Amino acid sequence: MAAQAGKLVVVGAGAVGSSTAYAALIRGSARDVVLYDIDQAKVEAEVLDLAHGTQFTGASSITGGTDIALTAGADVVVITAGAKQKPGQTRLELAGTNARILEALMPQLLEHSPEAVFVLVTNPCDVLTVVAQRIAGLPAGRVFASGTVLDTSRLRWLLGERVGVSRSSVHAYIVGEHGDTEFPLWACATIGGVPLRDWAADGGGKAFSPEALEELAQEVRTAAYRVIEGKGATNYAIGLSAARIVEAVLGREDAVLPVSTVLSGQYGIDGVALSLPSVVGAGGVRRVLEVPMDDGELARLARSAEALRASARSLGY
Amino acid sequence: MAAQAGKLVVVGAGAVGSSTAYAALIRGSARDVVLYDIDQAKVEAEVLDLAHGTQFTGASSITGGTDIALTAGADVVVITAGAKQKPGQTRLELAGTNARILEALMPQLLEHSPEAVFVLVTNPCDVLTVVAQRIAGLPAGRVFASGTVLDTSRLRWLLGERVGVSRSSVHAYIVGEHGDTEFPLWACATIGGVPLRDWAADGGGKAFSPEALEELAQEVRTAAYRVIEGKGATNYAIGLSAARIVEAVLGREDAVLPVSTVLSGQYGIDGVALSLPSVVGAGGVRRVLEVPMDDGELARLARSAEALRASARSLGY
Amino acid sequence: MAAQAGKLVVVGAGAVGSSTAYAALIRGSARDVVLYDIDQAKVEAEVLDLAHGTQFTGASSITGGTDIALTAGADVVVITAGAKQKPGQTRLELAGTNARILEALMPQLLEHSPEAVFVLVTNPCDVLTVVAQRIAGLPAGRVFASGTVLDTSRLRWLLGERVGVSRSSVHAYIVGEHGDTEFPLWACATIGGVPLRDWAADGGGKAFSPEALEELAQEVRTAAYRVIEGKGATNYAIGLSAARIVEAVLGREDAVLPVSTVLSGQYGIDGVALSLPSVVGAGGVRRVLEVPMDDGELARLARSAEALRASARSLGY
Amino acid sequence: MAAQAGKLVVVGAGAVGSSTAYAALIRGSARDVVLYDIDQAKVEAEVLDLAHGTQFTGASSITGGTDIALTAGADVVVITAGAKQKPGQTRLELAGTNARILEALMPQLLEHSPEAVFVLVTNPCDVLTVVAQRIAGLPAGRVFASGTVLDTSRLRWLLGERVGVSRSSVHAYIVGEHGDTEFPLWACATIGGVPLRDWAADGGGKAFSPEALEELAQEVRTAAYRVIEGKGATNYAIGLSAARIVEAVLGREDAVLPVSTVLSGQYGIDGVALSLPSVVGAGGVRRVLEVPMDDGELARLARSAEALRASARSLGY
Ligand SMILES: NC(=O)c1ccc[n+]([C@@H]2O[C@H](COP(=O)([O-])OP(=O)(O)OC[C@H]3O[C@@H](n4cnc5c(N)ncnc54)[C@H](O)[C@@H]3O)[C@@H](O)[C@H]2O)c1
Ligand SMILES: NC(=O)c1ccc[n+]([C@@H]2O[C@H](COP(=O)([O-])OP(=O)(O)OC[C@H]3O[C@@H](n4cnc5c(N)ncnc54)[C@H](O)[C@@H]3O)[C@@H](O)[C@H]2O)c1
Ligand SMILES: NC(=O)c1ccc[n+]([C@@H]2O[C@H](COP(=O)([O-])OP(=O)(O)OC[C@H]3O[C@@H](n4cnc5c(N)ncnc54)[C@H](O)[C@@H]3O)[C@@H](O)[C@H]2O)c1
Ligand SMILES: NC(=O)c1ccc[n+]([C@@H]2O[C@H](COP(=O)([O-])OP(=O)(O)OC[C@H]3O[C@@H](n4cnc5c(N)ncnc54)[C@H](O)[C@@H]3O)[C@@H](O)[C@H]2O)c1
Repeated sequence: MAAQAGKLVVVGAGAVGSSTAYAALIRGSARDVVLYDIDQAKVEAEVLDLAHGTQFTGASSITGGTDIALTAGADVVVITAGAKQKPGQTRLELAGTNARILEALMPQLLEHSPEAVFVLVTNPCDVLTVVAQRIAGLPAGRVFASGTVLDTSRLRWLLGERVGVSRSSVHAYIVGEHGDTEFPLWACATIGGVPLRDWAADGGGKAFSPEALEELAQEVRTAAYRVIEGKGATNYAIGLSAARIVEAVLGREDAVLPVSTVLSGQYGIDGVALSLPSVVGAGGVRRVLEVPMDDGELARLARSAEALRASARSLGY
Repeated sequence: MAAQAGKLVVVGAGAVGSSTAYAALIRGSARDVVLYDIDQAKVEAEVLDLAHGTQFTGASSITGGTDIALTAGADVVVITAGAKQKPGQTRLELAGTNARILEALMPQLLEHSPEAVFVLVTNPCDVLTVVAQRIAGLPAGRVFASGTVLDTSRLRWLLGERVGVSRSSVHAYIVGEHGDTEFPLWACATIGGVPLRDWAADGGGKAFSPEALEELAQEVRTAAYRVIEGKGATNYAIGLSAARIVEAVLGREDAVLPVSTVLSGQYGIDGVALSLPSVVGAGGVRRVLEVPMDDGELARLARSAEALRASARSLGY
Repeated sequence: MAAQAGKLVVVGAGAVGSSTAYAALIRGSARDVVLYDIDQAKVEAEVLDLAHGTQFTGASSITGGTDIALTAGADVVVITAGAKQKPGQTRLELAGTNARILEALMPQLLEHSPEAVFVLVTNPCDVLTVVAQRIAGLPAGRVFASGTVLDTSRLRWLLGERVGVSRSSVHAYIVGEHGDTEFPLWACATIGGVPLRDWAADGGGKAFSPEALEELAQEVRTAAYRVIEGKGATNYAIGLSAARIVEAVLGREDAVLPVSTVLSGQYGIDGVALSLPSVVGAGGVRRVLEVPMDDGELARLARSAEALRASARSLGY
Repeated sequence: MAAQAGKLVVVGAGAVGSSTAYAALIRGSARDVVLYDIDQAKVEAEVLDLAHGTQFTGASSITGGTDIALTAGADVVVITAGAKQKPGQTRLELAGTNARILEALMPQLLEHSPEAVFVLVTNPCDVLTVVAQRIAGLPAGRVFASGTVLDTSRLRWLLGERVGVSRSSVHAYIVGEHGDTEFPLWACATIGGVPLRDWAADGGGKAFSPEALEELAQEVRTAAYRVIEGKGATNYAIGLSAARIVEAVLGREDAVLPVSTVLSGQYGIDGVALSLPSVVGAGGVRRVLEVPMDDGELARLARSAEALRASARSLGY
């Protein structure tokens, strides 16, 4: 199987980082995958476990360790490093911890890979994108977050199951914050060319009432909580999401993915990163699409932006 | 690489049939691929050439010959057998020749593979679908044509190139006859969630005027002619289209593809086969989608249906 | 992407089971993947996390839970369920615990999937294969362990790195117990057609002295310990190994893999399961290959067999 | 699906060239595939037909035409351009014609792609490799032929069918001339770790007598003739072989493939190109392996070399 050329560095060998590397190796998302972490025992064991399976994957290689020099010359850097929420710790305190980690990391990463595209996965990923982009001083398109790529995947799976159609034929997006204020763009959602709101139920009539749609949105919004409750983390779906984004960049795909980029005036929003359908290809995000939104959607987007701006400010950005 | 289970029989080892088998082997569209033709030297040579490359493909096998018994137990039968237009021969005369071939073939194929799904590729594929379905006496969903799957793929490639976005993010359909009366459903076409008609040009303003769209439709409509003029046939794109349809059936995908099924009342059309976005999965076409159409589109669909009905009638169906 | 038909049930949604499902989904190893575990919160969360990523995989589906009825009609069952070694617990005590789990599980699994092939991954996998095969009363080929498939993959990766050749061109096997008495078959090992023992070093001379080979064997033998020390478990490489075995069965591949089957006289060994290169295809293991071994190798194989026989006996088998 | 980075130029849009491009697009062997030919109508039609199918492939693009500037910056150039044997024309006359084409082509290709690796497919490919390498003045590893990669694939398929084992578990090589003097290396051939000559027949006893092996070799040697007789050309298997070689180069795989390189002293042969198992990776052939051969094999290799040297000489090389 062909493996895409290019060097992928995954920063953080935790549940998310190692799953991202695993998915990338199996899919051949990059020719060279490097796992970097500060925890030596952990990162070396993950690299070994991943390498031991490569008899059954394509040409991609996996190496890694604690030496920042290993990250040199990366084409894409996926950042999953970070502290996890501790009992009693607020989300904002967590954000502060992870922002501090980024402040130390970004300059080092950038020094070793001055041409890389940076993809933030560590949470809160929208806010940390602002932090990382400011620190790096790079164009917005080169520092973005996986954002609602994962949430959108969740929505499409749910919709596909609901209507009995392959999720690959479901076209709908979750936009805004990767978090509580996110929302779906129902107006432009289609299934196999049919507007979602016109989709016919099996027995006749519309399949989705406004309430049913709101329930679906709510189910997506709370999905991560349910997964974390049951297994302590989410890693598999985000690993695939991250690998998919890497492929779009390294493959110069110009594929549309709802990643989170620091905006500069779109929908009147500036200096805040949130997710919108975006063209992802060589060099990162090449264009943020302007999906038509109705007033309700515009208001929700503005609310998302405000929440994110407040978080960023409280971290000093 | 995993190969999808199931037995695929490709009838006709010409340019289209052998390309379909090649694509199916490389993609692992079916575990067992059988090529059947009446021309022994040809079919045995194609099978050998295909088999010689299997060191570099997955687990799928390829066999074949002139013995109809080889087709037994097929899960999907793709029919590419047929005469080609001879100089001076009208399209209708060709249709007659191919209808006669089908009349001889279908009963034999059905006898050996009573549970198979039949996919017509031989042209005129819409008309021949009516012929085959009548002969077989099977439910409409089990005998359908590749229809505008190929034309739709052509449209998406063109659109993707035009706007600089991956064709995988372009969602648009060509419907109607696989032929001169086919037309695109612009109203529900989207690119990455943005309605096609709202897509912004690089310099600002709408990217597509109604004239530009009509030109695109025309380019798709005449694409086959240009290919045939240059190389005498079209085979690669149709080979991939057929393999893709096979995967949707064998993989029980319920994927939406614009295949051509004998309609029974949709849009007021009955007993004519034409392409509409359809859910393709286990057992063939499971649902023909009712895409909202405006009056112009409805009129074009009716015109497509009338042209096809006339052809069928002239063949005695 | 084509997904192989067939139903894969993974028993145990722990680190190994969920990684197996993840690899199987990404690779399309089976059309339907079911995760079964007795821990409801855990299994439901894993299924959700896996399902959330399916936007980026092929047609395969993932479901699961704690209801044994979900396993019904499986084509392949991969068993990863089991207790883990507790501090102070001996390996034999652990074997006892896992044997008891199997005694309860196998009859239920068999009742729901009377035609399935069973692949043991839970350790000690060779001994548990004897247990499972006796309980099930099935032919040896239908109940086997992943055995040294993983260890062989480790060896090939190491050799590939050492000589600067793709691991896909390295052909060597680890055989015997999946554990301390395992050993490589150096005599028949080749790299791109060159006997391993003849492989030329870059500077001239043989690349591998007998001591160097023994070191490699030792590195493979202790690899799992090093991974477990660093990350607490091994899951990624075994997940890929299990997915690969599943593909060989469902794809009727007749691929040679060093799985562990209860022997019946080969090399004078009877009633003990250990790994030898075996043809894996429809219905499981179809043939255990008789690789020529020298006296030293035969002695090691006998030692492996004795160790395994003793373990099985102490568990009452 | 990930597409390997890099630019592949296929020179010659005939049966072989277009099949190579088709296989490369479906497999994602290169990010950018360019088809170049002097026949404008033909090449433009092939490019269009290939492009029309890309809705169903990965990120790879296909373009092409008659302008040599389109080939610029290639990473790998596969040369399939050439005249076909005309009635009454001897093989040597054909060689002359194709050598003249190369003499015109190589300088132009090299000028536009000074860093490319060149893979000769046009026949007689071994002799033309000498011609191309001399003209280009490049290191031997950068100008080589597909050689017996195709013949080896044929052999493995035959052996796999004969013993009922997946061809992926059959390890055997055809070496020497891509033509009548080629021969298999039986001594080092293995199936799943078992020496081929020791492989047990189903009923007991050795499966392969020396005569049976010689018959197999003969069947491989004459395979192309049988295919050409039946369909007028061979294209599918060679298309996959060429795509596979491209992947080894672009993926920096260091995979062992029996390609044909101008030798410099191996086995006492100098200045002649013939196939031997070789490590193919970044920059082309990185190492020609020295497989142990017995006296009979050495004699056959020498005979192959002499035949090829005579051909080259008669062309003035
Ligand atoms: N954006 C999303 O959609 C999404 C989804 C899931 C998880 N996440 C986030 O991903 C992050 C990682 O989650 P996880 O489950 O892998 O956590 P984890 O605790 O398992 O792993 C985090 C890893 O980061 C490493 N690390 C800490 N500081 C580092 C530094 N300075 N340099 C390098 N490595 C460092 C740690 O050693 C640890 O191995 C979390 O912030 C989580 O919230 C985001
Ligand atoms: N639907 C589409 O999108 C589409 C696209 C391309 C081509 N086509 C059609 O596909 C058909 C095949 O095209 P082609 O280029 O492969 O033609 P071809 O002439 O190369 O091959 C046709 C093959 O059918 C065989 N055949 C004839 N009668 C047969 C019978 N009774 N049983 C079995 N085999 C029989 C012939 O021996 C021949 O090998 C044509 O009708 C063409 O118009 C359709
Ligand atoms: N053979 C190999 O090469 C290999 C490699 C790695 C691990 N393993 C073995 O795989 C096994 C699983 O390892 P892990 O890391 O996933 O362990 P784990 O503890 O993470 O998971 C085991 C799972 O089994 C479940 N379970 C226990 N009893 C069950 C029952 N009766 N029915 C269904 N599920 C049940 C548990 O709830 C748990 O989720 C261990 O025995 C380990 O030694 C084998
Ligand atoms: N090495 C192998 O294993 C192997 C296998 C099969 C075929 N072949 C060889 O491959 C070659 C091509 O076979 P084919 O069936 O594709 O032939 P073909 O006649 O179908 O195509 C040859 C193409 O080369 C083009 N061409 C001629 N001169 C050219 C030039 N100067 N620049 C660019 N293009 C030019 C022609 O226009 C034509 O399109 C033959 O020499 C054949 O013997 C080799």
